[in-house]
Parts: sequence; structure tokens; C-alpha cells
Amino acid sequence: MSKKIAILTSGGDCAGLNAVIRAITHRAHKLGWEAIGLENGTAGILEDPPRVRALKPGDFGGTLMRQGGTILGTTNSKNPFQYEMPNGEIKDRSDEIIAAFKALEIDAIIGIGGDGSFAILNKLAEQGGLNLVGIPKTIDNDLDMTDFSVGFDTAVAVATEALDRLQPTAASHDRVMLLEVMGRDAGHIALTAGIAGGVDIILIPEIPYNVESIAKKIAAVKESGRNFALVIVSEAVKTPGGEKLEVVYHGGEKRYGGIAEYLGPKVAEATGFETRVTVLGHVQRGGSPTYNDRLLASAFGVKAVELVNEGKFGRMVAWQDHNVVDVPIEDAIKRCRTVGPDDMLMHTARSLGISFGDE
Amino acid sequence: MSKKIAILTSGGDCAGLNAVIRAITHRAHKLGWEAIGLENGTAGILEDPPRVRALKPGDFGGTLMRQGGTILGTTNSKNPFQYEMPNGEIKDRSDEIIAAFKALEIDAIIGIGGDGSFAILNKLAEQGGLNLVGIPKTIDNDLDMTDFSVGFDTAVAVATEALDRLQPTAASHDRVMLLEVMGRDAGHIALTAGIAGGVDIILIPEIPYNVESIAKKIAAVKESGRNFALVIVSEAVKTPGGEKLEVVYHGGEKRYGGIAEYLGPKVAEATGFETRVTVLGHVQRGGSPTYNDRLLASAFGVKAVELVNEGKFGRMVAWQDHNVVDVPIEDAIKRCRTVGPDDMLMHTARSLGISFGDE
Amino acid sequence: MSKKIAILTSGGDCAGLNAVIRAITHRAHKLGWEAIGLENGTAGILEDPPRVRALKPGDFGGTLMRQGGTILGTTNSKNPFQYEMPNGEIKDRSDEIIAAFKALEIDAIIGIGGDGSFAILNKLAEQGGLNLVGIPKTIDNDLDMTDFSVGFDTAVAVATEALDRLQPTAASHDRVMLLEVMGRDAGHIALTAGIAGGVDIILIPEIPYNVESIAKKIAAVKESGRNFALVIVSEAVKTPGGEKLEVVYHGGEKRYGGIAEYLGPKVAEATGFETRVTVLGHVQRGGSPTYNDRLLASAFGVKAVELVNEGKFGRMVAWQDHNVVDVPIEDAIKRCRTVGPDDMLMHTARSLGISFGDE
Amino acid sequence: MSKKIAILTSGGDCAGLNAVIRAITHRAHKLGWEAIGLENGTAGILEDPPRVRALKPGDFGGTLMRQGGTILGTTNSKNPFQYEMPNGEIKDRSDEIIAAFKALEIDAIIGIGGDGSFAILNKLAEQGGLNLVGIPKTIDNDLDMTDFSVGFDTAVAVATEALDRLQPTAASHDRVMLLEVMGRDAGHIALTAGIAGGVDIILIPEIPYNVESIAKKIAAVKESGRNFALVIVSEAVKTPGGEKLEVVYHGGEKRYGGIAEYLGPKVAEATGFETRVTVLGHVQRGGSPTYNDRLLASAFGVKAVELVNEGKFGRMVAWQDHNVVDVPIEDAIKRCRTVGPDDMLMHTARSLGISFGDE
Repeated sequence: MSKKIAILTSGGDCAGLNAVIRAITHRAHKLGWEAIGLENGTAGILEDPPRVRALKPGDFGGTLMRQGGTILGTTNSKNPFQYEMPNGEIKDRSDEIIAAFKALEIDAIIGIGGDGSFAILNKLAEQGGLNLVGIPKTIDNDLDMTDFSVGFDTAVAVATEALDRLQPTAASHDRVMLLEVMGRDAGHIALTAGIAGGVDIILIPEIPYNVESIAKKIAAVKESGRNFALVIVSEAVKTPGGEKLEVVYHGGEKRYGGIAEYLGPKVAEATGFETRVTVLGHVQRGGSPTYNDRLLASAFGVKAVELVNEGKFGRMVAWQDHNVVDVPIEDAIKRCRTVGPDDMLMHTARSLGISFGDE
Repeated sequence: MSKKIAILTSGGDCAGLNAVIRAITHRAHKLGWEAIGLENGTAGILEDPPRVRALKPGDFGGTLMRQGGTILGTTNSKNPFQYEMPNGEIKDRSDEIIAAFKALEIDAIIGIGGDGSFAILNKLAEQGGLNLVGIPKTIDNDLDMTDFSVGFDTAVAVATEALDRLQPTAASHDRVMLLEVMGRDAGHIALTAGIAGGVDIILIPEIPYNVESIAKKIAAVKESGRNFALVIVSEAVKTPGGEKLEVVYHGGEKRYGGIAEYLGPKVAEATGFETRVTVLGHVQRGGSPTYNDRLLASAFGVKAVELVNEGKFGRMVAWQDHNVVDVPIEDAIKRCRTVGPDDMLMHTARSLGISFGDE
Repeated sequence: MSKKIAILTSGGDCAGLNAVIRAITHRAHKLGWEAIGLENGTAGILEDPPRVRALKPGDFGGTLMRQGGTILGTTNSKNPFQYEMPNGEIKDRSDEIIAAFKALEIDAIIGIGGDGSFAILNKLAEQGGLNLVGIPKTIDNDLDMTDFSVGFDTAVAVATEALDRLQPTAASHDRVMLLEVMGRDAGHIALTAGIAGGVDIILIPEIPYNVESIAKKIAAVKESGRNFALVIVSEAVKTPGGEKLEVVYHGGEKRYGGIAEYLGPKVAEATGFETRVTVLGHVQRGGSPTYNDRLLASAFGVKAVELVNEGKFGRMVAWQDHNVVDVPIEDAIKRCRTVGPDDMLMHTARSLGISFGDE
Repeated sequence: MSKKIAILTSGGDCAGLNAVIRAITHRAHKLGWEAIGLENGTAGILEDPPRVRALKPGDFGGTLMRQGGTILGTTNSKNPFQYEMPNGEIKDRSDEIIAAFKALEIDAIIGIGGDGSFAILNKLAEQGGLNLVGIPKTIDNDLDMTDFSVGFDTAVAVATEALDRLQPTAASHDRVMLLEVMGRDAGHIALTAGIAGGVDIILIPEIPYNVESIAKKIAAVKESGRNFALVIVSEAVKTPGGEKLEVVYHGGEKRYGGIAEYLGPKVAEATGFETRVTVLGHVQRGGSPTYNDRLLASAFGVKAVELVNEGKFGRMVAWQDHNVVDVPIEDAIKRCRTVGPDDMLMHTARSLGISFGDE
């Protein structure tokens, strides 16, 4: 009887997950494993009957790998160790989940997630003696020990395209355009799209900035004879005073308001330029994955099954030196991979005259 | 000696303006007219020397028609009749502008603008005996007497693409996605992109709505077995109580916050769905024009020069019954073309099960 | 018991068909009709059991309307009146098909097709007393009595994008780029994409041309200081001598070779420019439909069901004067709608200095 | 007085060249060098006066980096050592070119090219004592010692998008779609786009194939219940008999015809599937560069100037291990980097069930 791999997707959405699931299914099938999809992750396995579905190569013959999202859904923020019950009670259901895996006679789990998901899955695996392999996915690209995680490439492509749309209208109408992109703790999306999108200023959480420096850079742009400027800012950036903005309230109503909306009026005032703010939001997470994300997804999915087949557990597949390798999951989640001071792209950006609002 | 047409672009930005300017230049050249571009519209003509540039067909041989924005810039909100001087004083400079046109020996003006620009240009033309032809452009598509204005097609394409990106991530993560699109006074972008983007609910300023109806529709979607919903809302939509939202203040700081940000939390609360808000913003105005906008731009530009050549002034070119025609400018700006109750697309939308939050 | 509408897609592929099927299903459901999809058209109904599937609004909640192709497949060129049997025999199976429709208790048929399909379906309907409504689809846009057919907008968008990609490389490398687009009998795609894509020469089957005129135009372009030229040609264009090119043979091997490949070397020789040929092919038929095609699909699908519901048969839905109407099918297929000599776009093209290779 | 860097682009076109030129210009300016663009490469420098233009950071403030092509043009295949004169004579003009460089007081040359261009430039540099730094660009990605060359990413993105368009129409119409992509000597584009585009068969010059294996794979696809198949083939692939196809003649007329057109009818015959061929052609070389190509271009341009500034000549910038490094030009052009038997992507492809027509 063939052995079973369970696949689950977990955490925030990104493009390329269906391509990962497809690759796992194909490779498992070839190596004689059965592939089982867990719907809604560890939350679905607790339902009665558990929400599982058999996965066959033939399920993926059509457009699925070209589509965003994940056919397996997510845990919807249900933490096995602090599970929120319908009555609001918080409960540790990790033993139930482990029992459910065993009842389904699952031999190995491939978890597709980010650092948060891996921390939970790893703990679960250790507690229950489950065989876990991880595949990194996060648009933020902040998982350590891998150059790329699934979803990042698409997010940067979407952000760059937004800058391509904002530039001509900025130029026609003498404006500063401020684009806020995602990146919860790290500035990779902003840094990468900022260079590719030809911005004047990049603001990322790794580098303290001030409004005066922004104004100075924009004044220099104006001085050079250009009538517009482009600024990209990561959502993780705090106010110059160090405040993290998330939501504001207005007359009892909950209102959103992030760093770009905070900075917009300040930049306008400091520069005299009309300033417009765009908050790109969830379009960065969805839509058809770029070819690079599909490629990464395919190589990762194949490798993860091979690790399972070789009995190498507790590993995360990773992209290093233009190749697929594997690293210990626990090492990969030890720290958030932020933009370092010696990052080659930082140097590239500064060499192109891009300011980080810090000088 | 050849006679001169002056071209100016005015008002909010949209895609396709360079393609209009190109078409005018080509047609003028063929009919023996000289084409002159006014930089920054009626504001630039007041500078010393006036900001004008000769336009030749050869200027447009490359990529220009494929680019967003306008090489001629805009008036930067300078109203000739209420011109804001550097010292803040408001002054009527219409006579100066008329004199500047005459000093440049301009025989006709082709103004590319929306209703606001046309009202001003028309008044100026009447006062100064200037020969004016108008070309309609507005992403809102709310100019009367023309089925299409330049820029609308691109804006809808961008908004539809955003929905294509939001749908899979909504489906993977059990969410309501709320997309706010432009449309200052009319719901055309939201209605059109909403149908094409497969939304469940369209909110436009022409149709009063309430949050209960939105929640009811989303509950019905859930009942049908679907785990997500898409909502599109025009920026012109007011709160159910009739308040127009524009900006909010927080601790002395100016914050933006529109109708989508207002509705997001309310929809979340009323439906129990996690709800995410995307405000698409200025990406709708920029970027490479769609082929339809380039086509419209080309046909309009050609026709406008022909009206000039025939001495038919005070006319706006227009698209009616799959053809280019001309109508009196003053008729075109009499009213804002909003979405009517018998609009065929309204009927199409309701027939597809789309709710307008009103039932 | 609710009455049944059968839906079939027929003939060449185009983008937007799934959006049509979705709209029919929604409208049928709302008006109390059952919607049945016929797989592989009139060919599938002959199988035992007949290939039919119930269609529900819930089938279309996800990405289907955003996808190219058709979930119902086509007849695979099986003509009911001249049906090619497995043994190669040609047989009239129209009575069997009619009987199959009656056995399935189908009350009305909505056929989504082009002129060829409509001719067959109309004959079948008359012979069998079937209730037929047609929805026009063809990337060629050559159906009469409707401004637009489903699929045309996407095809033109794809062709225009190809020109956007060819232009910069032509300019960098001093080349003539010759793009062949589809259009079996009419030049609409070439004419429309040619204007929008900024070409110098458009060759369509409606206008006789000669290589000397092409060379003359390109010489004039060179004279004006530009170092490249763009040419678009419809696949339906014949050689100047009137030969229709389709395939050539080489050493016993079948080879393709159309008009662009024929003209490429001749243009190179006549102009001294390096010339490159691109034959766009089936990418014009596939992929995600543009918003306009989805809109047309939606409006057409809704209207077709309403005609069924009102008992108006033998009609084709059509787009006229920015509205959905209906016309007799037999009138719509009487003639192929080619590009007329007074076509407004022809005039626009010539006014922009575009040559048709005829002067 | 500041020292001068001359920049030239050479060889076949690709996307991202303007972004390279921009990055060089910025970095040069910051480091106190003057940047000079050579128009039409070593050919332009021979004209009287030489075709050079000063390059300033301000030239690139707008859309230029977002555009395909190169503002500097190319040598138009003029080899300095075997220069074709207007009278057809072949002449060694290397000494003239070297003299021209010296007359312009150029201190260093940054050549943006592929292996052919580098071989020539390197020889010229050695002969004339010129200071050369190379930046790799080729859509084929076959330069050795660098993981990526500028232009490859865009070409693969275009090819993948074509597969996304071909898949649904293949599925609707029960077809085999055969896509021919570029790649003069190496299969990187076909391999990469093939995986990302979800094909069934990839044919590359590195792997011998036969039509029987293709037919066998497609039969297996059909057996599995799928009614269509996708095949990608590199233009460099020969016939199974080892013939390189380039052009065919028909009735005295020169006709093009490559490997896809050769294989199309054979695949149709061997499989019984209707087969359609698309030859993607020059759209792979043009159009707006992807963000990855702009990033690579930016990092390469910056690094190249730094090498010049440090006096490190005879070097090519390269991408290795997610970083920018430099390698000896002569080493980089020693061999063509083809797809190796142990290539990780080959393994990924086979693991996904993709056939290379060889088994």
C-alpha cells in the first residue's frame, strides 16, 4: 500500500501555491506516494469528517497552476495551541490534531507557509512525532536561509507595474506619487520594486528616515528640472517618531490609515508638490503567479517530496546559489531576514541616486 | 502661410492623451495646418515667453502614443477667471490669456478636457472670439452626448484586473474584498468593472444603499456555498446617512479615508467575514492606454482637426452609434451623464444576480 | 416543472465564451429555466448517453468567467448534415440530432457561434422545429448586423500588445517588422490593431495592394528620419497576384507559410531594410478575455435568455448603437461584414498617414 | 577634467538595455565620470562626425528605463575586423575604430553585448589597448559564468504568457499546441517557460528526440483523460535527422520555415490530434522589461562603472549566488552555457512528468 503525504497551505495568501501543490502531487505520484490535500490546514482536519481530498496529477492538467490563491484554503488563523472555539474560549487542541493525522494514517506532512506557520507546525511535529517538510512562501521574502520564497516575485511585479502606471500621471500633473506596498517586517518588496520602478525615494523599516530628508531629495529632483517624484514606502515603516500606524478611529467609526496616508500630507506640505497616495493592498497577494513564482513553486514542490521520500524531516526546502537545497526548519525561522546594511540592492539603489530618507 | 492650431490638455489625467495629440498633429499636417502644443494649458501661455512648442508628425514615430500622461502637462488647476497668483491673490486673467492667444496668431484651439475644462474654455472662447473645438476625456465617462471619453476604457481595464487579482485571494482566505474605484460623480467605472470582474455587489452614487442589504446579499452568497464575496464601490458613494467622506484627522494629523475604508469594518461586522479594503487610486489614470483608448483618441483627434478645417467651432467631437460625430460643447456640459435607471448594464448586472445594496 | 435551455458553443475558439455561458446560466436560473450545457455541441448530443451537463450559477462563482476557452468544447468540425463517421463515410445525421434534442426535452437552444455555425444551426432548427437563439462570437468580427462579436476585443488587444513589443526592437535595430494577424475574410483585426499599434502600413483583404506602394511608404518613412517601420497584415490577404497562400511543401514535408512569410523577403528586398516576420497565431484566440469581451458576453447572455423567455426565436442578439438588440439570424449571416470603403476607421487610418499599400 | 566612459550596445536586441544605460549614467555621474553614448556601436564611431551623445542622469527621469530597445542602437552587424563597405568590399577597420576612440579621448568602454560582441570587443581592446568592461545581455541566457544575462527574464515571461493563452484554446478545441521560442544555441527559454507554462513536452537542442516519443507522451496524456497537449520547442532544435531548418523556397520565393512548422504536421499525423503551430518571434525581444531585468540591468550598470573606476578592465560583470560579481571576459565567452544533463530545472521538469521527446 502506498504511503501518504498530506499537504497544507497556511498563513497569508500569495501567488504560486497551486503550482506548489501541483508539483508535489506529480512528484509524489511518480515516487509511489499518495498525495492528500488538507483543506483549511490544521483547522480542517479537526472537522468531522476531516476535510481531506485526494490529489491526482490529472487535477492539474488545466489552468490551476496559472491561478492565484490555493485550492486548499488556510487555517483561517486557527492556532492549534491556542485555538479559538466558537464560544470564544481558547483551547490547546494540538493533541487532537496530532491524533487526527495519525487516524488518517498520514506518513508525512508538507507544510507550505511562512515563519509563523512553520513555528507552529514544527512544534506540532515535535510534540506528535510527525514527519514535517516545509516549503517557504511569503510575499515579504523575509524567511531566512532562502534567497526566495514563493509569492515574492509576483508581489514585486505587481508593485512595479503600479509604479509604471503612476509615473506618467505624476509627470503630466506635476505630482509626488507615494505608493505603499506590503512587507510586514522587512523592506524587500519596497526596495526591489523601488529600484525596478524608478523611484526617487524608498522607505523601508530597516532604515530610519525623516521628512526633512525626503523633502530635501524632492527639492533636488525639482532643482534638476524634473517636475515630479515617485516614492515607495513599505507598510512596516513607522512614523519618524517611531509610532506603528494601523488603524484610526473617527467619530466612533473604525478607519484604516497606514504610513503612506500619514506621510502623504506631510510630504505635500514639506515640498509644495501636490501629493497622491496609493495603497496597493491585496492585489499584491493574488492573481496569476509570474513565471518565476511558478518555477520556484515547481522546483520546491519536487524537492520537498524527495526529502520526504528520503526520510529527511524537519527540513525546509530553500533557494540558494541558483539551486534548490534544504535547511533545518528551525534555523530558517530563527530570525526574520530583513534588508541588511550591506545588501547589494541597497548599494545599487543609492548608486542610482535613490534616497532612503536618511541623509 | 499655414494656419495654426493650438492644442492643450486640461484637468485630471487619463490614459490616451498623447495618442490624441499625435492624431491631431498628423491630421493638421496633412490638411496644411501648423500644430502648436501649449504646455500647461492656459497657464503656460501666460509665461514669458509663452510655453508653446511646435508639434510635428515625426515627434510621434516611436513610443509616445503608447504612453500614459500628456507631454503637454495641464493647467495645474489654474482657472483663467479665478487665477491664483503667487501671492495668493485671486485674479481674472482671461483677457491676458485671450491676448496671448492672439499674439501667437493662433487660428483655432483644440482643448482636450472634461466638463470643467470645457466650461472654462467655452467661456474664454466666447469672451475672446476664439475658435474652439473640444475632445472629451475623463476616466469617469460622465460627459454627456458621447458614449465614450478618452481614458475610461483604460481605467476600467485596470479596475477589472484588480478584481482578477483579488478574487483568488478572497477565495483562498474566506474573505470579502472591497475595491474602491474612481468616479467623482458617476458610477460608470464601478458598474462596468464590477460586471466584468464578477463582483457580487456594486455600489454607485446613483443608487441609495444600506449596509443591511449588503449583508443580506453576502449571507445569500455564503448560503449558496461560496466562501467569499467581491464588492466594488465608487469613490463618489456617500455613507448610507448621506455624508460625503474625504479626509479625516487623527491627533492633529491629516488622514485620508474614503467610503471603502468606512464600509470595510461595517461589512466585516455585519457579515462575520474578514474584510479587506483596496483603494485603487491613481493607477487608474496612468499607464499605457488600452487599444480602445488609442483608437478613440485617434478618431477624435482626426475629427477635431477636420472640424477646425471646416470652420465648425464650439463643437465637441463625440462617439455615438459606433461612429465619430460632433455636438455643441455647451450641450455636452449641461449635465453630468450618470448611470440611469434604465441603463442596459444595470439590467445586465441585476440579471447576473449582482446586488446594488438596495434590496 | 421548469423548462430547459440547451447551450452550445460552436466553431473557432475565442475569449469570452465561459462568460457567455455564465450569463445565460444566471439569467435562466432567475427566470425559472433550467440550463443544460451540451458538450462538444451537436456532436456530443449524438453520443450514448448524450454529453450534457446541468449548469448552475454556483458553477461560475470563481475564476471561470475570467478564463479563455469554453467549458463546453465544440463540435470539432462535425457538420450534422455532412457528418464524418469513424469509417470516413459522410452521412446526414440531422434527424438524429433533432431527435436527440427532443428526447432530452429541450425547449430552446442558445447557440454561441459564428456565421458558419449559425447557418447550420438555423437549418437544423427549421428542419426540426427547434427554438433557436444565436449569440455572435468570432475574433474576426465579420458577422453582419452587430458592431461587435464576442472575442474580437481580446484578439485586437493581443495584436496591439504584440506591436507594442515589436516597435522598440524595430527602432533599436533599424528594422521593418511585419506582423500577421488573424481574420479569415475581413480585415477588422488588422485595421483596428494597426491604428492602435501605430503601424505605417495596414494590409487587409478588402484593399488591393502592391509591393511597390509598400516600398514607397517605407522609403517616405526613412526619408522623414525614422529608421524603422511597422506593418500589419491580415492572414486573409492574398499575394498581389491574387494567390491565396496556405501551405507549402518542401521535400515531401508539409510546411506552413502564409502571406507575411511571403511578403517579408519581398519587403526586405524592395526597401533595403532588414525585415522580420511574426505570425501571431492562436494566442489571439485564447487567454483571459478583456473586460469588454466579458461585458459583451454578459449582456448577450442575459438578452438571449430573455428572447427565449419571450418566445422570440430565430433571432441573434446583437450590439448596435451602444445597446443590446436582436436581429433575424438569417439576415445576420447573409453576408460577411468586411471593412467598407467608407469605414470611419479607414478614414482615421489614412488621416494618420497610414498606407494601405495601394497608392 | 572628468574622465570619459563610452557606452555601446551591440548584437541582438533584448529588453532592459535602456535600464543598463541609465544605471551606468547615474553611477558614472556620482563617481565623477562623464558618460558618452556611442550610437550604433563601433559603426557609429566611424562616421564623420562620430555619432556620440553625452548622457546625463536627467535623460532618464521619465519612462526610458521602462522601455524596450536601446536608445543607442547597434552596430547593425558591422564587424570591425570584417567591415562590409557600401561597395560590398570587406575591410579590416579595427585600427580606424581604435583611433576614433582615442580621438574622442575615451578612457574606458562599457560594452553591453553577448558572446559574439564580446569576442570582437575584447580583440579590439587588446589590439588597441582599450579599457573594456562587459555587461552580459542575451535573451538566450547562454553566456557562461553568469546565472542571468539581461533580457532573458522578459523573454521567458513573454513565452510563458503565450502558453497561458494557448492552453485554454487547446483545451476547448482538443488540440496540440506547439510553440516555438527563441534560443539560438541553448534551450534555456524553452526549458524555463515550458515548466512555468505547464507544457507536456519540451524540445531543446541539448537533448536528442524523436517523433515517436512525442507521440507516445501525447498518447499517454490522452489516456489519462486529457484532451489536449502543449509542446514548446526551441528554435535551435534540429530535425530528428539532424538537419537545421532555416528557410525554404517555394516557386522561387524565399519562405521562412523553422522546426515548429516542420514538426507540426508530423505531430498531427502521429497523434491524430489537430495541431497548431505558433512561432513567437521578435515579441520575445521587445517591450517593457520585467522588473527582474530592470533590477539586473541596474545592478550590472552600477557594478560596471565601479570596475572602470577601480581600473579593473577585461572583466565582465556577472550574477552569481544572488550577487553581482565580475569575471574575466575571455573566460565568459570560452563556451556557450547550454542546458546540462544535471540541470536542476531538467530534473524538475522530468519530475513533473514533462517529456523531452527522448523516451
